[in-house]
Amino acid sequence: MPVLAGINSKVLKNGDSEPSPPPAGIYRIYNMRFCPWAQRALIYASVKNVPSEVINIHLKEKPDWYFSKHYKGQVPALELDEGKKHVIESAHIPEYLDDLFPESRILPSDPYEKVQQKLLLERLAAVAPAFYAAAQAANNPEGRDEKYAALVKAFEDAEKLLTGDFFSGKAKPGFADYLIFPNYQRVFWLSHILPNSPFSSESFPGPNFPKLAKWYRTLDSIPEVAAASQPTEMGVGFFNDYLKGTPNYDYGL
Amino acid sequence: MPVLAGINSKVLKNGDSEPSPPPAGIYRIYNMRFCPWAQRALIYASVKNVPSEVINIHLKEKPDWYFSKHYKGQVPALELDEGKKHVIESAHIPEYLDDLFPESRILPSDPYEKVQQKLLLERLAAVAPAFYAAAQAANNPEGRDEKYAALVKAFEDAEKLLTGDFFSGKAKPGFADYLIFPNYQRVFWLSHILPNSPFSSESFPGPNFPKLAKWYRTLDSIPEVAAASQPTEMGVGFFNDYLKGTPNYDYGL
Repeated sequence: MPVLAGINSKVLKNGDSEPSPPPAGIYRIYNMRFCPWAQRALIYASVKNVPSEVINIHLKEKPDWYFSKHYKGQVPALELDEGKKHVIESAHIPEYLDDLFPESRILPSDPYEKVQQKLLLERLAAVAPAFYAAAQAANNPEGRDEKYAALVKAFEDAEKLLTGDFFSGKAKPGFADYLIFPNYQRVFWLSHILPNSPFSSESFPGPNFPKLAKWYRTLDSIPEVAAASQPTEMGVGFFNDYLKGTPNYDYGL
Repeated sequence: MPVLAGINSKVLKNGDSEPSPPPAGIYRIYNMRFCPWAQRALIYASVKNVPSEVINIHLKEKPDWYFSKHYKGQVPALELDEGKKHVIESAHIPEYLDDLFPESRILPSDPYEKVQQKLLLERLAAVAPAFYAAAQAANNPEGRDEKYAALVKAFEDAEKLLTGDFFSGKAKPGFADYLIFPNYQRVFWLSHILPNSPFSSESFPGPNFPKLAKWYRTLDSIPEVAAASQPTEMGVGFFNDYLKGTPNYDYGL
């Protein structure tokens, strides 16, 4: 059974015809190769070994038919049951996959531990808006210091929240680890580009964040996570264009 | 066993001492009587008959100790296990209560039906920011038409999404119904105050929304929902002050 088949296929865009529904038993993920939210679904499918295929979508020239998969036209969307069912939103798709495939469950079964993982993820997700603000500052020095400071603050908060090796609180990564990793990976890519980056691209995020640095290295080296990630040079290249306002969703293909 | 004991107690504020932990088996909800998000937890506890007590918090003069219950100091927060456990966030507390008390489960057990209820709630929640924008327009005519139009649009979208009697898709109300009701109740209160309100306070929301009107009447008349709600005159009175910038969290007590 394939897992994440077609992850590096070119995007479908307005004018392209709608692909036929996924075959029975195959879970299709609508994706954009550099989208951190869609990557959450990819990582989960990869770690859980879900039979899956990926279709990439042009986010500036969306096909009309895509709005029948996601009413807002965003990624990710999960399509199953030969096209008859859809699940959207980056935090809901993983939980749904856990409910559907409990034998490879990543979220805890205990209600209290489960809800704490979801709440921790939401708390850690403060890194995302801080990242986008800092990214905008790359080409615009105005307010750059404040934006960098806000991003550093998000990292400091995460460093404090990381009390063991993983945000799961266990000996192996869990829901919060896998789902927040893509956001950190975006900052890692950005650290190659940002003028006076507050983070080290060599020993990311740098010596002030020893726990996060070890965590990032560990997550990054998990084969199932790597299989759901773009290589660093692709990510850096994409963001170079993105910051100029000309993202190339097929960068490197 | 009491349910929602103390729902009309006066707020605790900065300087007030921390209450002793809830007794074993009692679920404490930190609340503000007019907060639609906290009311989600109250309705769920009421419908599920969870042994519970309510402590109201002054949202402009928060007690320092409250930040140990909710790191942002917001309501709702659920406190249990004699003060040793906390669950926050208005959509997570209800799901947690369903996991904890599965015999009175409101969310569907089927994974697909469950995630669709959660996604539908998020879609319906577009009414909330539109409500706050329209409320600000009460005392400021600038941009009022656009703000009213956005709120009407949220109602039109909901009217379309309500394909049966309830957002649950079943013969009785479910997760999405109970959790979105407080937001509609706020618009109902506001319709008594708004100059040129686009909604009728007599047959709320009005003749253009026949399905929502029936839905609202039905939800409003459920005793367990009423027990978790403030009476109309209280809500209207609170919002009158709120719109002047001087909310009285103990209004009517």
